[in-house]
Amino acid sequence: MAERKISQAIIRRLPRYYRYLGELLENGVERISSLDLSVRMKVTASQIRQDLNNFGGFGQQGYGYNVKYLYTEIGKILGLDVEHNIIIIGAGNLGQALANYTNFEKRGFVIKSMFDTNPRLHGISIRGIPVRMIEELSDYLNKNKIDIAVLTLPKTNAVDVAKIVVNGGVKAIWNFAHTDLHVPSDVLVENVHLSESLMRLSYNIANTKRG
Amino acid sequence: MAERKISQAIIRRLPRYYRYLGELLENGVERISSLDLSVRMKVTASQIRQDLNNFGGFGQQGYGYNVKYLYTEIGKILGLDVEHNIIIIGAGNLGQALANYTNFEKRGFVIKSMFDTNPRLHGISIRGIPVRMIEELSDYLNKNKIDIAVLTLPKTNAVDVAKIVVNGGVKAIWNFAHTDLHVPSDVLVENVHLSESLMRLSYNIANTKRG
Repeated sequence: MAERKISQAIIRRLPRYYRYLGELLENGVERISSLDLSVRMKVTASQIRQDLNNFGGFGQQGYGYNVKYLYTEIGKILGLDVEHNIIIIGAGNLGQALANYTNFEKRGFVIKSMFDTNPRLHGISIRGIPVRMIEELSDYLNKNKIDIAVLTLPKTNAVDVAKIVVNGGVKAIWNFAHTDLHVPSDVLVENVHLSESLMRLSYNIANTKRG
Repeated sequence: MAERKISQAIIRRLPRYYRYLGELLENGVERISSLDLSVRMKVTASQIRQDLNNFGGFGQQGYGYNVKYLYTEIGKILGLDVEHNIIIIGAGNLGQALANYTNFEKRGFVIKSMFDTNPRLHGISIRGIPVRMIEELSDYLNKNKIDIAVLTLPKTNAVDVAKIVVNGGVKAIWNFAHTDLHVPSDVLVENVHLSESLMRLSYNIANTKRG
């Protein structure tokens, strides 16, 4: 299954399938037709069938999809069957919001530690997650296997901190800092640029009014 | 300029141009060639020229781009020359993080009020922004012109609150709740689904390892 080449467009849609299937599961729905799923998700049934056919044999004519099976399989494709050790660098409001979001842990994203520069946060913990000082980061990474570093810190520090993280062997960065990180090609970066999202909304407001 | 049909791909790239030009301005750079900009942004010079040509005449052969002019013009295209009144619904960590992010205000996004269900937050203010109780929302919207409602609340409340917001005449929602909102076609929704972003990272981790 993993050998097949899957388009980026489908990959972008998979988490949304996963979310809808998770909600169906929570509501005790055991199976669903592509038509029913298409009505809920507001996409065409044929798109759903095409997308899910990429992963082979989930659906059965006249039966529909087995919700739990499909949910589990898409979870595997998304890498959610593996535990990921995470650290959050930047224990301000945004870092704390992410630390408090228990859904991440349910999906195998285990937050092991937070880091900050603010000495007032030294020694405290958030939902049981200790906050360490940024000076300890390099040493911590030498002693602990961390899969994902979350950067929730000002852009002025982000570039330097990303270097420490990369030198410490972390291969994936979830970047909320409002800057582009230039990292070696074997390090993955997923950016969340909130300002840019807000600007897209503002663009659409401007152009809807004019239109 | 606004009459021209601009592709969604370019619109997605515009905020990034805006960010780079803003940084150049901060650093006192007055003009820049498409080649120099392309090296900084890690895209091709020809892409930059093509993108910016859509808006006509910013660049001059042998001179390059006037940074301030280009920054201002892209800002106008993005609707940043207009002030937007914002409310944030959900004054938890994420809502407070957004309220504390002063850069939004610099770009004309003025946060007028926050709302929450938690009575302990009643009457407090965050960076001078008052927190009101959710029961006051409908009345508040009748008395104040709000352009954008930011939803930073649990998905269980988001759908109901979105209805109040839409009934109150708000035409744009910046949605952080982990659910799809079904709103009338004249209401714009820009989603920030953080879990889905994290899953894309996890997908890429899984497939880089296998590959």
